[in-house]
Amino acid sequence: MKQQVALWDVFEVELKGADLANPFSDASLSAVFSFGNRQVVAKGFYDGDSTWRIRFMPDTEGEWRFTTESNRPELNGREGSFICSPARPGLHGPVRVRNQFHFAHADGTPYFPFGTTCYAWTHQPLAMQEQTLETLRAARFNKIRMCVFPKHYIYNNNEPLMPMFEVGADGKEDFDRPNAAAFRHLDAQVSKLREMGVEADIILFHPYDRWGYCLMGEDRDTHYLRYIVARLSAYSNVWWSLANEYDFLIDVKPVEYWDRLFHVVEECDPNRHIKSIHNGNPNMNFDHRKPWVDHVCIQNWDVKRTATWRDTWGKPVINDEPEYEGNIPRPWGNISAQELVNRFWITVMRGGYAGHGETFMHPQDLLWWAKGGVLRGESWKRIAFLRDLLEQDVKRGLTPYTPANSRGEFNRISGAHDGDVRYLYFGEHQPREWAVGLPMEDGDYDIDLIDTWEMTITPLEKAPLPVSPPLRGHLGVVHNAGPEAAFGVRLHGKPWQAVRVRTRKS
Amino acid sequence: MKQQVALWDVFEVELKGADLANPFSDASLSAVFSFGNRQVVAKGFYDGDSTWRIRFMPDTEGEWRFTTESNRPELNGREGSFICSPARPGLHGPVRVRNQFHFAHADGTPYFPFGTTCYAWTHQPLAMQEQTLETLRAARFNKIRMCVFPKHYIYNNNEPLMPMFEVGADGKEDFDRPNAAAFRHLDAQVSKLREMGVEADIILFHPYDRWGYCLMGEDRDTHYLRYIVARLSAYSNVWWSLANEYDFLIDVKPVEYWDRLFHVVEECDPNRHIKSIHNGNPNMNFDHRKPWVDHVCIQNWDVKRTATWRDTWGKPVINDEPEYEGNIPRPWGNISAQELVNRFWITVMRGGYAGHGETFMHPQDLLWWAKGGVLRGESWKRIAFLRDLLEQDVKRGLTPYTPANSRGEFNRISGAHDGDVRYLYFGEHQPREWAVGLPMEDGDYDIDLIDTWEMTITPLEKAPLPVSPPLRGHLGVVHNAGPEAAFGVRLHGKPWQAVRVRTRKS
Repeated sequence: MKQQVALWDVFEVELKGADLANPFSDASLSAVFSFGNRQVVAKGFYDGDSTWRIRFMPDTEGEWRFTTESNRPELNGREGSFICSPARPGLHGPVRVRNQFHFAHADGTPYFPFGTTCYAWTHQPLAMQEQTLETLRAARFNKIRMCVFPKHYIYNNNEPLMPMFEVGADGKEDFDRPNAAAFRHLDAQVSKLREMGVEADIILFHPYDRWGYCLMGEDRDTHYLRYIVARLSAYSNVWWSLANEYDFLIDVKPVEYWDRLFHVVEECDPNRHIKSIHNGNPNMNFDHRKPWVDHVCIQNWDVKRTATWRDTWGKPVINDEPEYEGNIPRPWGNISAQELVNRFWITVMRGGYAGHGETFMHPQDLLWWAKGGVLRGESWKRIAFLRDLLEQDVKRGLTPYTPANSRGEFNRISGAHDGDVRYLYFGEHQPREWAVGLPMEDGDYDIDLIDTWEMTITPLEKAPLPVSPPLRGHLGVVHNAGPEAAFGVRLHGKPWQAVRVRTRKS
Repeated sequence: MKQQVALWDVFEVELKGADLANPFSDASLSAVFSFGNRQVVAKGFYDGDSTWRIRFMPDTEGEWRFTTESNRPELNGREGSFICSPARPGLHGPVRVRNQFHFAHADGTPYFPFGTTCYAWTHQPLAMQEQTLETLRAARFNKIRMCVFPKHYIYNNNEPLMPMFEVGADGKEDFDRPNAAAFRHLDAQVSKLREMGVEADIILFHPYDRWGYCLMGEDRDTHYLRYIVARLSAYSNVWWSLANEYDFLIDVKPVEYWDRLFHVVEECDPNRHIKSIHNGNPNMNFDHRKPWVDHVCIQNWDVKRTATWRDTWGKPVINDEPEYEGNIPRPWGNISAQELVNRFWITVMRGGYAGHGETFMHPQDLLWWAKGGVLRGESWKRIAFLRDLLEQDVKRGLTPYTPANSRGEFNRISGAHDGDVRYLYFGEHQPREWAVGLPMEDGDYDIDLIDTWEMTITPLEKAPLPVSPPLRGHLGVVHNAGPEAAFGVRLHGKPWQAVRVRTRKS
C-alpha cells in the first residue's frame, strides 16, 4: 500500500548524502511535487549527520509524485509518490486572508486571531517549555508570537539552550552552519503548537541580540531564511513575521532590505504562508500596502484608531502589542488587566484583532511575554471569553460601525456587525439607556447584555427609545437627525459593558 | 469725600432719560474714563424704566474722571470722578493669558482653570439657582460655562424664567428690545460668581434653541453683543465664549461671521476679557491661531493629544468637554467618574486644562450640566484634589514631558514640570517600579505617591534604578539609550497613581 499523508500534514523525503566541507551550502536540493499537470517546488535542507530532508505540505487530496533535483548525484533524481488522504480531525490547513480584513483556514473555517506573545519560549529550560505548552492547552490563545533567535533584553539575560549555529574550533558561532539540533527543536515545538490549534507567528529577525544574529549581513541572512523556510514551510500553522520592531534595526537593515527579505521568503515558500512585519515606534509602521505584506502587524496603544488603520492599509489589522498586562517599569508592559481587556474589545469591535502579553515582575525574571511558563494575570480569561463569543456567531468577520457608515457616536463607543449578529461595546462609557446602533427595523431579536469583565451574558428586553430626535421645535441646525433605532435597551450604568443583538432564526 | 470703588470692582453711572420709541437703539451712550492722560471708553446701555447705565471696571488705583457722550442731550456731557481704592481681599482681577499656555489674574496670582458646566442654570427656578450657588460654594470649581440664552435640548424642555427680549403685543419676542429684567438677573448671578471666585465663561450664542435666538440675523446679533458686553464687561470674572458648538450653526453663521462677532466684542470691551469659541464635532475646531482668539476652547475625548494641541495653536488649551461623568444615552455624557478623573489628570499633565460636567439621568431631568442644582457624581471631589495639588506648587504653569523633549515613554504615560515640582501620572499603567522622568541629578527631594482616586499622598523613598540601560552587550540598535534618571521609586502596581517630586528647599 502506498504511503499516506493527511491533507496539510508534513510529507518528508529523507536522503543520505556524502560528507561535504559545508553540507549547508555545498549541496543544492529541491524536489518537484506533481499533482496531475500541477507542479510545486519545495526546497530541501541539511539536517546534520549526513542527512538531507525535503518537506512538503500537500494541499490537495489524491496522488502526489515527486522528483528531486540536486547538484550532488547522490541527492539528484530520486522519485517517489504518496497519497494525500483527508485532513485529520481538527486540522483546518494554513490560515489565509479572507474577506479583505479577516482570516480563514484553507478549509474555510473562519480564523479569528487571539494571539499571545512568548518571544523566547523555545530557548528556555525544557521543563519550562513543557509548562508553556501546558498553559497554552488550558488558555484559548490560537496564535503565539515567537522568535527563532534567543533574546537579549531586560529580564532576558539567560543563555539559550542551544546556539542557533554550530560553534567552531574558535568557540564562536559559524553563521554559515546552522545548528541542526537547535532547528530540529524549533520544528518540534512548532509541530506541537499545530496539534494544539495554535498558529506559530515566527519572528525571523529581531534587535534584542548579544550573539550577532542581527548583524550577519545580507548573504547570511538570505542563507538563513532559505534554510528556515525549507524547514518550517510544510507546517500548516506557520506565519512569517519578518521582524519584531524592524525599525530598531533600521540603521543596519533599511526598508529596501526588508523588502528583499520578504521576496526571499516568498520565493522559497511553496505554501505562501501569510507574512507581515512588526514595528517598534508607533510612528514607524511599515508600508503594509506593499503586495508582499499579507496583513498589518503593528504595536499601538491608541486602539480607537483601529478602523482608520483598516482604511489606510486595506488589509487585516493585527495589533499584536496594544501594551501588555503587567507591572514592569516600562509603559508598554504595565497596563491593568481591565485596560488590556478593554483594548481587546475596542480593537475587535473596530474590525481588527489584538494580541496579548504579560509582563509581571518576577524574582527569577520569569515573564510570560519573554519566556512563557504560567500566566499570572487576569486578562487572558476575558480574552478567551471574547474569542468564544465571536466564534459562536461571526462568519465573515466583523465590519465596524464608524462615523462614516453610521453615526458620530461610533467615534466614541465601538460597535460592529456581521450577518445576523451585531455588537455594541461601551468601554469607559456607562449608559443606563441606549439606542444608537440597535436595529433600525423592529423584528425578532435575541438581545443580550455582556459584562466583558465579569464574563456574564444576560438577556435584555426591548425598551422604548430613550430620546426622540430630532428635537421638536429645534431652530439651530439639527444634528443627529433621524431616528436612532427601532427600539432601545436599558442597561446598568456601569463601565465595560457590551450589547449583542442576534436576529432570531424562525 | 469722593466716591470710592475698589480695584476691579464695578463703577456705575446711572442716568435718567427721556421716553424714546426704542430706547435700546434710539439713544447712543458711552463715557470716556480718564486716568491722567490715559482714556478708556465704556459703552452705556438701557436698563429699562427710562434708566441708562454705564459700567466701568477700574484697573488702576487712583483718581478716575469721566465724561458721557450721547446723541441725546439729557445723557450727553455728564461728568464725574471717583477714587479707585485697593482691591477687596480675594479679588484678583480679570484672568489673562500668561506664559503662553497658562493664565493668571491681573494681580499676578496664577489661575489654573478647573471649570464645570451648567449651561442654563440662570434660567431655572430661583430656588434651584440658589442651590447651584450653594453647590459651587462647597465644590472647588473656579469657572462655570453658562449660556446667556435658555436651552432647548434633550433633558432641557422647561421654559426659562424670563424671555431674553421684551414680548410685544403680538405675543412674540421683539429681538430689538432686550428684556432688561432678564439681563439684570444675569448680571446679578455673574456678580455672585465673582464674589465666590468663579469665572463666568459666558456663552454668547448656541444652537439649542426653539425661541429664535440663534436666527436673529447679523444686525440684531451685533446689537445684542454690544448690549451684553456693555452690561457685563465691568465684571472682572467675565470670559467671552462666542459660541457653544459653533459648528452646529455653521449653515447660518459661517466662520467669517464668527470672526466678525469676535471683532464686535473686541471693539466694545474696554477690559479685553479673554475670548474663545467652542466646537461640537472634534474635527471642526475653530482656527484658534487667529489673533482675536485668546485661548483654545475645545471638546475632545482624545486627551492624550493635549500636548499636540498646544503645539498646533500655541495658546492655552482648555478642553471643556472631555466627555462628562454620567449615564445618559449619549456617549459624550456617560463616562465613569474614574475615567473623567483620568482625563483631567492626563490633560493637566500634558500641559492643558479640562472641564467638568455631570449628566446623570434624573426623573425630573435635573442634570447638573444643563440646570445646575446638586452634584451627584464622584469625579468633582477628585478634581478639587487635583486643583489643590497644583495650587500648592505650580507657579508658571505646567510644561509637559513629551517624546520630543524627553523620552518616548511620554507618549504612553503623562508628566509635567514647573520650577521645583514635577509630576508623573500613570493612569491605566500600573508599574511596580519606575524611573523615567525622575530627576537626572541626585539631590534632596520630597517624593510622594499620589493616589488620584483615593486622594491620598504617601511619601516615597528613593530606590535603585529598576533597569540599567543600555543593555550590556546589546548588538541591535540601542533604543532608550542613556540613564533613565538618578534614582528610581517603588510603587504599588495599581492604576490611577501619580508621583510628585519636589526639590527640597534648604
